[in-house]
Amino acid sequence: MKIIETHAAPNPRRVRIFLAEKGIEVPFEEFELKVENIQSDEMFSLNPMRQVPILQLDDGECISESIAICRYFEALRPEPCLFGQEPLEIARIEMWNRRVELGLFYALMHAFRHLHPRMGAREVPQVPDWGEANKDKALNHLGLLDKQLQDNQYVAGEAYSVADITALVAVDFMAAARIERPADLTHLSRWYEDVSKRPSASA
Amino acid sequence: MKIIETHAAPNPRRVRIFLAEKGIEVPFEEFELKVENIQSDEMFSLNPMRQVPILQLDDGECISESIAICRYFEALRPEPCLFGQEPLEIARIEMWNRRVELGLFYALMHAFRHLHPRMGAREVPQVPDWGEANKDKALNHLGLLDKQLQDNQYVAGEAYSVADITALVAVDFMAAARIERPADLTHLSRWYEDVSKRPSASA
Repeated sequence: MKIIETHAAPNPRRVRIFLAEKGIEVPFEEFELKVENIQSDEMFSLNPMRQVPILQLDDGECISESIAICRYFEALRPEPCLFGQEPLEIARIEMWNRRVELGLFYALMHAFRHLHPRMGAREVPQVPDWGEANKDKALNHLGLLDKQLQDNQYVAGEAYSVADITALVAVDFMAAARIERPADLTHLSRWYEDVSKRPSASA
Repeated sequence: MKIIETHAAPNPRRVRIFLAEKGIEVPFEEFELKVENIQSDEMFSLNPMRQVPILQLDDGECISESIAICRYFEALRPEPCLFGQEPLEIARIEMWNRRVELGLFYALMHAFRHLHPRMGAREVPQVPDWGEANKDKALNHLGLLDKQLQDNQYVAGEAYSVADITALVAVDFMAAARIERPADLTHLSRWYEDVSKRPSASA
């Protein structure tokens, strides 16, 4: 098996951090995110959504969507558990992972894709007003995350989970989206320093 | 426990269909999606994302995000299994559920929220160009889904899963987004008739 990824892109980093936390090693193959590669028939056959990362199994079957790849490895090797075990814990982690994905990560992604001049060939049509609107959405969500981290050590409660991975990758992606992390979000900063120190953060 | 929902909205329907497939009954409480209700402090305390459905447990704790609510009940009552059991089955269902969510359901949601005059007070700012762009995204994704359903009885393979629930709710939401289902997508039509006939579809 191998993972086809683009090392500098945020979604593949989610999978790399997840695998590092699990202690699982999978060979990576670099995919250059150029328009002609993305639009190629080969890419369509690997993932019709034309996105990385892609887990290609030994028989050729491909699993895409970062969280689907993570769940595959969680099922293969349950420890350390990153999606929860008890019903309520599973629900809280799913809820926070999705909140961070939809409220923060995708907002940053839209700000980046609809405003960055380099993305004009890949995001068609670019809608700058939508990019701007997402800057506000992302900043609002950071405030909500700060509030959650005031009462909890990690995003989904007292244990590190996949929601922390999504949140860390999102916060680090703010630089690409050209949004500064507000300095007064002290709980977010405490958490950010903490999770950034884990060896997995540099995977 | 109870589920706070808005009966006419698509996300609560995902949870109702899921519970009907499981044979689980939970009391529902109607929440009127008016701006003053959505912006109320009470709504913020139930779900800071200000969205329905919300599962409120007997101790007051709230779980929001439709899929988080579904996963809670899947963990409590695993049969019939709607998220998969074996690693590869889990990964395929997660992949297809997310593809349909991101590529179709959210595209329709954006088309609806950014183009419908009635949504102007709730989606601020409305960006009509973004709404229009999402009509194309949704139609493209329907073609992809048709291709998948050419070779598979259900969205994620040979078994009905949560990905079918998301897809059915999305396809039915096309009316609200004012997009017609192309008649030449015959595999999609075959699947749509099939899943619409299940008793859960009218939950």
